[in-house]
Amino acid sequence: MTEPRFDVVGIGNAIVDVLAHAEDDFLASHELNKGTMTLIDADTADKLYGDMGPAIECSGGSAANTIACLASLGGQGAFIGKVRDDQLGEAFRHDIQTLGVSFETAFANDGVSTARCLIFVTPDAQRTMQTYLGACVDLGPDDVDEEVIAAAKITYLEGYLWDPDEAKKAFVKAAQLAHAGGRQVALSLSDPFCVDRHRDEFLDLVNEHIDILFANEEEILSLYQVDEFDDALQKVRGHCQIAALTRGDKGSVVVSGDEVHVIDCEPAAPVDTTGAGDAYAGGFLYGLTQGYGLAKCAHIGSIVAAQVIGHVGARPDIPLKGVVEKALA
Amino acid sequence: MTEPRFDVVGIGNAIVDVLAHAEDDFLASHELNKGTMTLIDADTADKLYGDMGPAIECSGGSAANTIACLASLGGQGAFIGKVRDDQLGEAFRHDIQTLGVSFETAFANDGVSTARCLIFVTPDAQRTMQTYLGACVDLGPDDVDEEVIAAAKITYLEGYLWDPDEAKKAFVKAAQLAHAGGRQVALSLSDPFCVDRHRDEFLDLVNEHIDILFANEEEILSLYQVDEFDDALQKVRGHCQIAALTRGDKGSVVVSGDEVHVIDCEPAAPVDTTGAGDAYAGGFLYGLTQGYGLAKCAHIGSIVAAQVIGHVGARPDIPLKGVVEKALA
Repeated sequence: MTEPRFDVVGIGNAIVDVLAHAEDDFLASHELNKGTMTLIDADTADKLYGDMGPAIECSGGSAANTIACLASLGGQGAFIGKVRDDQLGEAFRHDIQTLGVSFETAFANDGVSTARCLIFVTPDAQRTMQTYLGACVDLGPDDVDEEVIAAAKITYLEGYLWDPDEAKKAFVKAAQLAHAGGRQVALSLSDPFCVDRHRDEFLDLVNEHIDILFANEEEILSLYQVDEFDDALQKVRGHCQIAALTRGDKGSVVVSGDEVHVIDCEPAAPVDTTGAGDAYAGGFLYGLTQGYGLAKCAHIGSIVAAQVIGHVGARPDIPLKGVVEKALA
Repeated sequence: MTEPRFDVVGIGNAIVDVLAHAEDDFLASHELNKGTMTLIDADTADKLYGDMGPAIECSGGSAANTIACLASLGGQGAFIGKVRDDQLGEAFRHDIQTLGVSFETAFANDGVSTARCLIFVTPDAQRTMQTYLGACVDLGPDDVDEEVIAAAKITYLEGYLWDPDEAKKAFVKAAQLAHAGGRQVALSLSDPFCVDRHRDEFLDLVNEHIDILFANEEEILSLYQVDEFDDALQKVRGHCQIAALTRGDKGSVVVSGDEVHVIDCEPAAPVDTTGAGDAYAGGFLYGLTQGYGLAKCAHIGSIVAAQVIGHVGARPDIPLKGVVEKALA
């Protein structure tokens, strides 16, 4: 086993977020489910964009956000995901490479455009996401670079990869390569509706193939089809090596074998909760790959999440290294 | 003279802003002049973008920002400016049309891409702008729709139009059409370096052709080549019907014939001063076209500027109608 070059390689849908403020009435009249992610086709994306207010564009994608946070903390990150050779694809590459993240996935030279996620931020800081997958559907097993997977301590996969068919194959290939190389595999459940769409496969994955699981409360309740958080907690214990469960302003709970940590959230003034879970995972994985204990990992995750929800957009807007060091001093 | 359909038609460079945080060291090492706008070519834009940190994209352009603020307040706005038929061009159109602004300028179907302004926001909330004009150089007199100019109470022009050759011709044509139709012409000086590049022509314009002038302190000092604000104030009095001079946290001064108003700025927590002057002009022109007195116009301008500098990006991030009504109640 060679010395790892990367702390974490993330694989996910490479998406540019298009963010605008919206009122609750807008969600109701467009039949959008607050707080969730829905897949939409190109026509629906065009129509919704037409109805959307003035917007800003910023690079997003769940696993990409996580790797961006890890890199901002000073971790060594790599990302695998598919964009087209268009303006939004260039912006996506710029934003992730400029953080020092290795991103070498070949651009698609034809076909549909770079994926966009229309995000409606309501006054309560909740985000409602409508995703047009675009070029993400072109991500396949050939894009999974064996050398990169072998060179990363942890391969981090987003549940959303289970939506495009070829990406699912890329997911499975990456997980197998990582384990074959003696590395760890982490999964984020991504979204309660994503869990609904793929529950049986996710249950099998968590039981058999995932070392580190990230889920928020709604997702873990959905996975085990239970109503009480504690019921889900009892079920997930032992199903994977580490489970980190986030509960919004109730903080997070981390279980690993006999270890259980209940960690408070950090004080925050939420402006836009987009990317809170991604940020928590980025901070947690940074701590883990630095060799910190689980409580400290969760604490770093909370600090990063608090930073990200304090502004519009799913990635940190300042370098995080100083922020976390100060908070942990 | 027909009844005006528009309060203000703005003509300007149609630009998408690419914003990132940067330290003062970055400005120094790249020889960037803090607080100013510099024109750059495509190669320089690519190189600087490569060195720039993670960024967000949002529609900008000086006159377009002003019209966006006017529309957000409830005013009837139109905009004339040139983008290409690419992703950033579509985003520009979306963001301005969705505010209810009429924007019918034909897209360029070939040639260079939609203009970008790389904006470096330093910790003191100052913005340093590097503009690649791109498709803006294709704006020409043919794009100035006579019917639109005749239908607007005020035609608002940004000084930056003096940079691309054909845009200058569009500027002159619009000003002539407006006056021929009995309408007013407003000008923003845009930037002290822009004033430097075109001082004699701007002096002639202000004396002969402009009814309403907007300038910040550096710009008006540059125009008259004086060192003291009061010296510039004395010179500009009488040179045009109304001059509105902004002074950052010292507020603004409005002169019109014998009238002089000295208006304090609104309390603000500056995050990014990009667009402060554009926002002030938007609020001021809204008030003017509603028939308000000059002091109230300046007050509205100050409120809008304070809203815009409180977040990253040059346009309001919430509808302004309520904000201003509340502040003026």
